[in-house]
Amino acid sequence: MAYDNRRLAELADHDAFIRRHNGPGAEDVAAMLAALDMDSLETLVERTVPADIRLGRELDLDPPRSEAEALDYLRRLARQNKVFKTYIGQGYYNTHVPAVIQRNVLENPGWYTAYTPYQPEIAQGRLEGLLNFQQMVMDLTGMELANASLLDEATAAAEAMALCQRANKKSKSNAFFVADDVLPQTLDVVRTRAHYFGFELIVGPAESLAEHDVFGALLQYPGESGRVHDLAPLLAAAREKNVMTCVAADIMSLVLLKEPGALGADIVVGNSQRFGVPMGYGGPHAAYFATTDKLKRSIPGRIIGVSKDSRGNTALRMAMQTREQHIRREKATSNICTAQALLANIAGFYAVYHGAEGLTTIATRIHRLTTILAEGLKAKGVALVHDSWFDTLRLTGVDAGKIHGRALTHEINLRYFDNGDIGVSLDETTTAHDLDALFDVLLDEEHGLSVTALDEQVASRGISGIPAASRRQSEFLTHPTFQRYRSETEMLRYLKRLENKDLSLTHAMIPLGSCTMKLNATSEMIPITWPEFGQLHPFVPQDQAVGYKQMIDELAAFLVEITGYDHISMQPNSGAQGEYAGLVAIRRYQAAQGQGHRDVCLIPSSAHGTNPASAAMAQMKVVVVECDEIGNIDLDDLRAKAEQHSDALSAIMLTYPSTHGVFEEGVREACALVHRHGGQVYIDGANMNAQVGLSRPGDFGGDVSHLNLHKTFCIPHGGGGPGMGPIGVKAHLAPYVSNHVVTPIPGVKEHCGAVSAAAYGSASILPISWAYIKMMGARGLRQATELAILNANYVARRLEQHYPVLYRGVNGTVAHECIIDIRPLKAASGISEEDIAKRLMDYGFHAPTMSFPVPGTLMVEPTESESRYEIDRFCDAMIAIREEIARVERGEWPVDDNPLVNAPHTMADLMDPAWERPYSREVGAFPAEAVKAAKYWPAVNRVDNVFGDRQLICSCPSIDEYRD
Amino acid sequence: MAYDNRRLAELADHDAFIRRHNGPGAEDVAAMLAALDMDSLETLVERTVPADIRLGRELDLDPPRSEAEALDYLRRLARQNKVFKTYIGQGYYNTHVPAVIQRNVLENPGWYTAYTPYQPEIAQGRLEGLLNFQQMVMDLTGMELANASLLDEATAAAEAMALCQRANKKSKSNAFFVADDVLPQTLDVVRTRAHYFGFELIVGPAESLAEHDVFGALLQYPGESGRVHDLAPLLAAAREKNVMTCVAADIMSLVLLKEPGALGADIVVGNSQRFGVPMGYGGPHAAYFATTDKLKRSIPGRIIGVSKDSRGNTALRMAMQTREQHIRREKATSNICTAQALLANIAGFYAVYHGAEGLTTIATRIHRLTTILAEGLKAKGVALVHDSWFDTLRLTGVDAGKIHGRALTHEINLRYFDNGDIGVSLDETTTAHDLDALFDVLLDEEHGLSVTALDEQVASRGISGIPAASRRQSEFLTHPTFQRYRSETEMLRYLKRLENKDLSLTHAMIPLGSCTMKLNATSEMIPITWPEFGQLHPFVPQDQAVGYKQMIDELAAFLVEITGYDHISMQPNSGAQGEYAGLVAIRRYQAAQGQGHRDVCLIPSSAHGTNPASAAMAQMKVVVVECDEIGNIDLDDLRAKAEQHSDALSAIMLTYPSTHGVFEEGVREACALVHRHGGQVYIDGANMNAQVGLSRPGDFGGDVSHLNLHKTFCIPHGGGGPGMGPIGVKAHLAPYVSNHVVTPIPGVKEHCGAVSAAAYGSASILPISWAYIKMMGARGLRQATELAILNANYVARRLEQHYPVLYRGVNGTVAHECIIDIRPLKAASGISEEDIAKRLMDYGFHAPTMSFPVPGTLMVEPTESESRYEIDRFCDAMIAIREEIARVERGEWPVDDNPLVNAPHTMADLMDPAWERPYSREVGAFPAEAVKAAKYWPAVNRVDNVFGDRQLICSCPSIDEYRD
Repeated sequence: MAYDNRRLAELADHDAFIRRHNGPGAEDVAAMLAALDMDSLETLVERTVPADIRLGRELDLDPPRSEAEALDYLRRLARQNKVFKTYIGQGYYNTHVPAVIQRNVLENPGWYTAYTPYQPEIAQGRLEGLLNFQQMVMDLTGMELANASLLDEATAAAEAMALCQRANKKSKSNAFFVADDVLPQTLDVVRTRAHYFGFELIVGPAESLAEHDVFGALLQYPGESGRVHDLAPLLAAAREKNVMTCVAADIMSLVLLKEPGALGADIVVGNSQRFGVPMGYGGPHAAYFATTDKLKRSIPGRIIGVSKDSRGNTALRMAMQTREQHIRREKATSNICTAQALLANIAGFYAVYHGAEGLTTIATRIHRLTTILAEGLKAKGVALVHDSWFDTLRLTGVDAGKIHGRALTHEINLRYFDNGDIGVSLDETTTAHDLDALFDVLLDEEHGLSVTALDEQVASRGISGIPAASRRQSEFLTHPTFQRYRSETEMLRYLKRLENKDLSLTHAMIPLGSCTMKLNATSEMIPITWPEFGQLHPFVPQDQAVGYKQMIDELAAFLVEITGYDHISMQPNSGAQGEYAGLVAIRRYQAAQGQGHRDVCLIPSSAHGTNPASAAMAQMKVVVVECDEIGNIDLDDLRAKAEQHSDALSAIMLTYPSTHGVFEEGVREACALVHRHGGQVYIDGANMNAQVGLSRPGDFGGDVSHLNLHKTFCIPHGGGGPGMGPIGVKAHLAPYVSNHVVTPIPGVKEHCGAVSAAAYGSASILPISWAYIKMMGARGLRQATELAILNANYVARRLEQHYPVLYRGVNGTVAHECIIDIRPLKAASGISEEDIAKRLMDYGFHAPTMSFPVPGTLMVEPTESESRYEIDRFCDAMIAIREEIARVERGEWPVDDNPLVNAPHTMADLMDPAWERPYSREVGAFPAEAVKAAKYWPAVNRVDNVFGDRQLICSCPSIDEYRD
Repeated sequence: MAYDNRRLAELADHDAFIRRHNGPGAEDVAAMLAALDMDSLETLVERTVPADIRLGRELDLDPPRSEAEALDYLRRLARQNKVFKTYIGQGYYNTHVPAVIQRNVLENPGWYTAYTPYQPEIAQGRLEGLLNFQQMVMDLTGMELANASLLDEATAAAEAMALCQRANKKSKSNAFFVADDVLPQTLDVVRTRAHYFGFELIVGPAESLAEHDVFGALLQYPGESGRVHDLAPLLAAAREKNVMTCVAADIMSLVLLKEPGALGADIVVGNSQRFGVPMGYGGPHAAYFATTDKLKRSIPGRIIGVSKDSRGNTALRMAMQTREQHIRREKATSNICTAQALLANIAGFYAVYHGAEGLTTIATRIHRLTTILAEGLKAKGVALVHDSWFDTLRLTGVDAGKIHGRALTHEINLRYFDNGDIGVSLDETTTAHDLDALFDVLLDEEHGLSVTALDEQVASRGISGIPAASRRQSEFLTHPTFQRYRSETEMLRYLKRLENKDLSLTHAMIPLGSCTMKLNATSEMIPITWPEFGQLHPFVPQDQAVGYKQMIDELAAFLVEITGYDHISMQPNSGAQGEYAGLVAIRRYQAAQGQGHRDVCLIPSSAHGTNPASAAMAQMKVVVVECDEIGNIDLDDLRAKAEQHSDALSAIMLTYPSTHGVFEEGVREACALVHRHGGQVYIDGANMNAQVGLSRPGDFGGDVSHLNLHKTFCIPHGGGGPGMGPIGVKAHLAPYVSNHVVTPIPGVKEHCGAVSAAAYGSASILPISWAYIKMMGARGLRQATELAILNANYVARRLEQHYPVLYRGVNGTVAHECIIDIRPLKAASGISEEDIAKRLMDYGFHAPTMSFPVPGTLMVEPTESESRYEIDRFCDAMIAIREEIARVERGEWPVDDNPLVNAPHTMADLMDPAWERPYSREVGAFPAEAVKAAKYWPAVNRVDNVFGDRQLICSCPSIDEYRD
């Protein structure tokens, strides 16, 4: 071997992670460029990204770090967080994440890399998990229907407010009532939302509800300082007055408390975090949302329903994705796109694993400990504000300063009310030993209290903090699923069975346009379950979250450099939330400039439905800008509309590169035009994956953008959430982003209300994006973008001889995705884009995005992480499918009996002795060689959507069905 | 709901883990007892365990702890270990475990709960992983053949010595040569082994090899203090003199060094730890063992080979499991049973992920840094003992005391030689920054050295520590497998594809008699990848391993209480190793008593083959004791043999309960009898799972037992290793267990040599057993044993109407396993136990143990962790198979074409358009309803053993085969 004279700098191989993240190696890149007749990636970029927006320099970021270095650094940051014993409560609680669930769901790429289950045949595992979640919520809340989760309790409450307004046809009021013992962060978010809906918000004691003429009301159960009171009379009185009611309920308390459904609530919302999901400094967790049956067509978010497949077997699907924004666009009152599927699954599995019996023991223990604490304190003369409780006590008349001092010494966090009261909330992790420490902290002198003696006294006398009228009388979690998996072995097998039903990135490319299913690297995921990130309550004193702050600040600085903005707000916990937050910031800024009358928002016709919905929620009037025949914004129309609405122009919302997957040439001009008319420019960051390192929205005219960290910055999709949608803003907007009532955010004006429950959104998943950027560095990020563009153009090149490719840039290239048109084929053959999508399952792939942004098309985004091997495998499958379609066209296969319309093929098909199809079993299920080496089987045949829509069943199958 | 007046003690639910570990719930237990006509578990135990050995009290252990409590406690222990930067070398090195491999292999139950791949059709994934490992070893060592791993480098060297003696027909010598620069722990183990083989051991400079008349020789490459010298002349000279040679080689160095095969070695051994396996305070890691082709039939351990299945497709299998002990029993010179499959897989995947290119960069970097260190030190006048090196330098004439002080300040560990020399070994994790710190520690004053300048100088002048003659000239890792998986996405999919080929405990019960495939709880597994356990070098100063010591001491104390012995030796890293260590302790003790002439070992005819092999290796003469017709030891024969050999009686080896799955009544008497004749009693712990909490071998006569921590105490089987085989001994034997040359063990006599490379064997997996015992407590452990017995008796009861059940205790019960006899069925139907085993795969199960201890039988051990649901599912399958056999008997299906002889059925079978079997596809592959809900597919059809044996291919398929 010749002497290897590489220098240490090269031998250190700091680019190692870049090669791990990106799919194509150097040889592949050369071959793919050759296929495109390009000589280099630079040429490709020059021909694709307009010259007037190209960055022209490398981003100013640290050089790439190795995986080990990045993790070492993060570990040091994590150690700067202090994990105190926390009794703050307020909607967040310590919990024991069952280890079998942590390892096999939360830390398992088979679960976290899956996509939203739009293709139910290859998503039966997580659909079943979500159905469990819905059933659990229905049982605990006593409601007839529950959705498959929302972002957090506060936004769920805001959605409930909007639902009340939409659904309450009887009330003429424009006011919404919020009880004064609602969690402060919930009130904060509801207040923001109400303001831009133009609702009047009335805050008062729950008991005063009947005094007000309102369309809806929000109550907390138990109250934020612990009171458990009988809501039934209040809810009944409200109903009398045609007021619709929402109860925000603590899920653990519902194990012992009378369920809100039995009390008469129309809607019940809450956080499921304490069912086995780490607090994570605020998120992500799954909020739940339950309603009565009659609201079923108006419920926001997704609902999983039970339907049948084409063989008549039970099959689950998303029964409703009432994505208002798609249906009602600029008339929408909700822009919810995503959910918290991964976390909802975890909470559901927690309930499956514990069952009613286990949950009862846990809730009873929490309540007993609280009662012991209450009795001990009362015995020592401490006054409690309420004489009822589930897990929370509010102490009054105490020396808060002294207690605070002792608590810090004991490394204990309590809740400190402004008036000097002290709050203590217990949870699943609290032990008798912890009570000793609490007594020591809360009581001044040698108290001599014995937890055991108090326990004896409390139990033998039947003392409880739950008034008799508020005790639960009904059974819950009676379905077999909640009874069978008690041993870890059975639970493990259940989790694995469900995992193996689903197609995820562990199996194959998921080429979803605009969804950017790239690598979620293990090293990025590892930190999120470290206790120092997972076990922090969002409202701990800031000196206990120094590591978080540093990490968030660094990530913000990276994103500032990447986007060209001046400031990042980390609060929005989804992309849609980011849109809303960005538009609200614009409106606040304009109002502060005396331009509050500006309320027109220009939106191109090609926009994602969420854009107009977000604009509507920010009380803007949407004016549509037309696109030309090649999909670009019609600049003349834009000019005309801007002119026409010049005085009222608030903003334009642009997606860049466009939803058509093209770097439009005129973007700088479009931005300048809007600015000239006094408007602000919102650039939708959904396609940021095509820009990082090549161009920056802040440079070419953007005032604000949201970033989908779950797309471009590697947060996994979790089978349908979590996401994160921080926004970048120019300096003038920075004071107007979201603040937070409990955790004020420096530099933001006080009056700016929150959009999410936690100050930094889903903070615990931010290390993922931090690590990605740190390990890639400027060079790696740019290469990733270039390869994303290369991969997409390579797909376009390979497919264009077989399918028409819609929309290209001026030099004939596409951006990071390409749209193939199925309409002519469908006209000729009868085979639809859906048939192709289902047929791809037989080849082992997830379908591309179907019929967005153009009906009858498929949009393919390979991302940089897919290898040439996998992309070729996908293109080969698409080409083979084209040939199958040709056989239908040629009449070799009947239009109604061919591998496409019969797709996907299941084991049941193959087993069928009555196989009489015009093609062999092998053609059906093993259409390609690669499939033989590693077959992924769809769990069910094509799902019958019509059947499922007609009879909506959103609960687990009954015991009888299990018996069959 | 009525007031829940349970007390806190009960609400705390400390028994929660017991319910998670055990399969049957209270209702199940009642139903199963009813099926057995028993009124309680106590009755079952009374009828099963002889009264004269029953413990009669609860074990004296701490009460059960919750999973969270146990993990908290362990975390505190872990924090007492200090993770210094370690440059000790000596066969153990820091390494970066690739995160994608850590999460998806090491931490994934799909990999770690699998069993040894005796059933190849359901083990193709790990077989491929092991084939990769073999290929990697062959490529790096330049040898023609490699096995699928051994326990550690030291025992691999000892095995090499034995192989030389077995295979070297030309030498008459009884002496073995060991170079004086072999690793000290290797010499320690080889010395022990040689002593009991009766070999003379000659230790001298490698260059003196030719001076001695020996049958074999062991050389280290590079030498233990770093020297790289050309072994070719020494090996050639040895060959001339009919000396067989073994080279112990550092695997990372082989990337750059001329491969030992090219130098002329007959055998090459080494440790693969530094290929991505944490040091773990000594283990587990996979040792490798490579030979020339002509030694292929004598190689110890397992070899994976390429064969064909019944459809002619390529299929892997264990080509050789030359378990000498089975073939030669008391003439065996090896008792190796297990391997380190999980760790070998990890090392193989590390090579797959990095490829030749990546490994070359890593090895070159290590070597460059070492060269820079050497040049810097030399420039400052420090003398090096050798003028060649790969990664290790030995400094001489330095002030070791001062350096030691500075090193401790810098939290750096160096190697300190007795003569004041200092050793420094670099590794994959060393950076340029680390070199700065090393210069600061090793040099007295302001040295002013610049790593960058030294790098420039070294690289531009072509300076290397590897002499020209020792540089590698050949390519390696050229197979496609080592080239394709460069991106994390591709690697992840490869790992998942392999995982999904294999049946593990994540799919179904693995009812292997005597292998105890119980739950490996996640909480038990979590600590093993904590850095504080994973990143400790075995030879760090003991004050850096305080947490380890405490954990090991506590575990030892638990095991003392559980077994009734006085002391535990944690060194043996497998059960067989434990047997050997125990017998050696007996021999040493007897020698110290002047009874060294005692060398007869009584072994019942029913014993596992390992027993006589271990006895032979301890230079004992095996005398077989007969069993009676119901499988029990014939006490009369025992009496006669003991009498006959009274003067020479050294020991008896008993398995209890017996290998027939029965608690024999006479065990106390048998032990007493042997004691009366001056012998010691060795109780094989393989079946300890039936005793824990009910009886203790130390109470009824045992002097020593090994414990299979990977059976009874929940260490997972890892797909064929790791195991752990500590021994419990009575006080009189305690001073005679294994000591360790580098890490002396308190209380053990100095002359007692080691049996394993590390003082505490595979220390990093001991937290698993610790946590299991801690979380179960005395009550839980006893319940587990009772339920293991209940489950086995329930199986026996359900199956006895369909298959004869062999061997029962005096009251008609079995112990924790039962044997069903297939011989009569086979005679009647032609269907063999193997057909049943393969057919069980179609039903989704792993086969029971086949033909052990009785040919033509199946031995079923359900363990306590299996639920009644799963056990019923298994029994239903066995009963359905019995009915299938009946159809063959009745002539409804031909003897040579039925679902049994054709089993297992694969997707290829189903797809076959030419299906013309006398049964449907559904009967073939979906014979039970439960299978439809979650089908596990065997990856290949029945593997052709004869074909594989005839042409032994143990390397990866060639590129050409990939092209086909």
